[in-house]
Amino acid sequence: MSVPGHRLDRMFNPEVVAVIGDKGPGYMWLHNNMPFKEKGGRLYSVQLDEKEIPGIEALGVQNFKSLADIPEKIDYALVAVPRQVSPYVLKDLIAAGAHGAGFFTSGFAETGEELGVKLQAQLKEMASAADFNLVGPNCMGLYMPKVGVRFSGDVPVAADGRVGFLSQSGTHGIMFSLVAAANGIHLSRCASFGNAIVLDVSDYLDYLAQDDETEVIGMYVEGVRDGRRFFETLKEATKRKPVVVWKGGQTEAGARATMSHTGSLAAPQAVWEGMMRQCGAITTNNLDETVDVMKALLRAKRPKGRGMALLAQTGGQSVSITDAFAKGGFQVPRLSEASYATLGEFFNIVGGSFQNPLDMAGTIQGNVETLDRILKIVDADPNVDGMAMELSAMFAARQWKKDPASLDQTLDLMKAHAERSQKPFVAVLHPAHEAEYVAQVQPKFSDRGLAVYQSFERAAAALARVAAYEGV
Amino acid sequence: MSVPGHRLDRMFNPEVVAVIGDKGPGYMWLHNNMPFKEKGGRLYSVQLDEKEIPGIEALGVQNFKSLADIPEKIDYALVAVPRQVSPYVLKDLIAAGAHGAGFFTSGFAETGEELGVKLQAQLKEMASAADFNLVGPNCMGLYMPKVGVRFSGDVPVAADGRVGFLSQSGTHGIMFSLVAAANGIHLSRCASFGNAIVLDVSDYLDYLAQDDETEVIGMYVEGVRDGRRFFETLKEATKRKPVVVWKGGQTEAGARATMSHTGSLAAPQAVWEGMMRQCGAITTNNLDETVDVMKALLRAKRPKGRGMALLAQTGGQSVSITDAFAKGGFQVPRLSEASYATLGEFFNIVGGSFQNPLDMAGTIQGNVETLDRILKIVDADPNVDGMAMELSAMFAARQWKKDPASLDQTLDLMKAHAERSQKPFVAVLHPAHEAEYVAQVQPKFSDRGLAVYQSFERAAAALARVAAYEGV
Repeated sequence: MSVPGHRLDRMFNPEVVAVIGDKGPGYMWLHNNMPFKEKGGRLYSVQLDEKEIPGIEALGVQNFKSLADIPEKIDYALVAVPRQVSPYVLKDLIAAGAHGAGFFTSGFAETGEELGVKLQAQLKEMASAADFNLVGPNCMGLYMPKVGVRFSGDVPVAADGRVGFLSQSGTHGIMFSLVAAANGIHLSRCASFGNAIVLDVSDYLDYLAQDDETEVIGMYVEGVRDGRRFFETLKEATKRKPVVVWKGGQTEAGARATMSHTGSLAAPQAVWEGMMRQCGAITTNNLDETVDVMKALLRAKRPKGRGMALLAQTGGQSVSITDAFAKGGFQVPRLSEASYATLGEFFNIVGGSFQNPLDMAGTIQGNVETLDRILKIVDADPNVDGMAMELSAMFAARQWKKDPASLDQTLDLMKAHAERSQKPFVAVLHPAHEAEYVAQVQPKFSDRGLAVYQSFERAAAALARVAAYEGV
Repeated sequence: MSVPGHRLDRMFNPEVVAVIGDKGPGYMWLHNNMPFKEKGGRLYSVQLDEKEIPGIEALGVQNFKSLADIPEKIDYALVAVPRQVSPYVLKDLIAAGAHGAGFFTSGFAETGEELGVKLQAQLKEMASAADFNLVGPNCMGLYMPKVGVRFSGDVPVAADGRVGFLSQSGTHGIMFSLVAAANGIHLSRCASFGNAIVLDVSDYLDYLAQDDETEVIGMYVEGVRDGRRFFETLKEATKRKPVVVWKGGQTEAGARATMSHTGSLAAPQAVWEGMMRQCGAITTNNLDETVDVMKALLRAKRPKGRGMALLAQTGGQSVSITDAFAKGGFQVPRLSEASYATLGEFFNIVGGSFQNPLDMAGTIQGNVETLDRILKIVDADPNVDGMAMELSAMFAARQWKKDPASLDQTLDLMKAHAERSQKPFVAVLHPAHEAEYVAQVQPKFSDRGLAVYQSFERAAAALARVAAYEGV
């Protein structure tokens, strides 16, 4: 899907991609973009160096010694040349009528060196004069999984991306893509935009806000050149879809680090936070929080209140889940008398308890019928706005390792509940001592669209961000 | 090692253990304690039920129909009988001159039921009158890995335990043992003490404070019967060794949950926190924080100031590690001019940066000499009180998977540094999308005594707790 008439539309939906200056032995950039070629995109290489050309052609990619020789208009180019060469490449791109380019090349203003500052100013002036869509420099460029354009050979090629992500850091852009994928969440479009000397976060954000394939937007941003424009663009974007903003350089020391990373001058944190609130953005502090809140946005129903029913597997965890959600700003109300009456008909495990939190005393192992009854009763309770359930790594994993079908059965039940209920449902499966096993079964949760978290605190924080976004 | 003359000494160093009321098919409690038998301890069973006896004897355990028939004095008994039977068992234990017993049996005051409250009062009166060491009831009892007494079949039998742990929750006691073990940390002695009707947390704490095998004490506590005594005992304990206190029921809702869990009436949180500060205890909010701070106490040198040198693998992570440590209450100072001069001789990777944070731009992969030089320079810097280093799951894991020896080489270098330096050194290896791989290599860090964390925030929080404990 495209956003017709948008300045970035061709670049974000490329049919012709050129890689400029890739080198062996790895030919990283061509390798990254082979899926684009495999999916029918026209992928070209530009490389003068005779030594590199056989390796490029061995990949089945047509190489040109001059950009001008490429027989089609370039939609997106990836530039990986030494910094001194970058102005010449930009000149050629403009002359060839290319639509846009990501400059992997670094060593500009972020170094503080005179040459770097000068070269950056030169790129900026040239691109601005030509209205050229320059991504970066000092960035990893674009990632459009559906068409197979990638900024890393590790990130997946997936057609079901629903999250748009913008990142001033290449690492964070790639890591977000990888961690999201490990959680079963794929991207629609992603831009790593580094020094952002021409296109700034607002340009990309404006596109993602209008892009129908993007349901939720996230970003890692260190600094914004035009604060007023960002403010206006963000305010418009949040009217259309949730926008999650992870700010780098929240502290004085962190802001010094952004300066040498992307040459960004960070706004005072209090000013920034006020701006985010006014825009209706959801703020986070790190990658995990960002993925966590996206998971809740995409996989849990939106809460209409703060009353949580909490289901834990033991007494100790009942206390812990309650502390975590209460600290996260939720209430843990008594259920209705009607619920207690119905629960009391079958829930009489000595040592357990059917107040709220519900100490299930191991109910979920091997007894899905009981779990199903409990979930239905709690779901129907008028005091309950949402549910969180512990799957204990200690008890449950022991059973599931012995009998994998019982995990599928439990998860199918949870899926049916999550789909049936109009209230948010989140699960917690602590990695604890079972980190390897938990990592292995994680896809079983994702495949069923379940919002599963690694700790009570992380589940509560994610849901609290969504609740605040919903104004409850 | 024992604490001669201490009331709990025999129970904490048992030679004779009896399991009362264990049942098939699993014979959980006998199974848990088979390592005790294998290590030469005398393990007996008491079971009247003819049906159960063959199964018990098949385990090689001698069964008696009456407790009085056991030919030796019992140091520690584990009681797993129906609640109505428990007073009769206690009577027999006292009559037989047993030293102490853990009552797994539950269904007492924590249920709020009349019968439960009455039975609990009866146990309490009997045990108090006889000065009997009753652990619990409604608990998992004791765990002494070195002698092989266990409260779960999953927890390890390890002779090198240095952490004592006390837990009002059985789950949290077992989970702490398991998660600590997954981090290479073993226990000296652990008591799950549930309703704590006779022996309270202060009794166990007093023992662990004097126990030479216990270097660090941790506890999960929901409520304390005698606050004054706990205050005095804790104050004495912290003079001898660090004590980490994780309080359950910190919130109003959480406190309601403790009531139905262990019948504990929680103190107002503000009062509790003031008390912890006055006692010099280290406070935590959950299991992960508790293990994290123990890891720093056991494996990192103690900080003498708050100035951190931060080493990350990319620019984006440089910003993130800095925000995390700055928010955690650390400074990230400029290094000395001498350090910059030496670093400048070889650290000129364009795109990297050798300010503080140090953006290593992938230095650690395959270049241990450079890493070694950097660590030595930073360690010698007078502005630096401690070091934190990122091992990127993205870059490093890619290299390590291909070449496992390079991981060992890097870890050996880090170990040498951590041992040589007088400043704390912590590592961060994000599980991120590599959770399974990270879980697999975790023991390589533990085996070398390295304090490794799953996120910048967790590393900073752990070290900040230690810094506060050290008064810096």
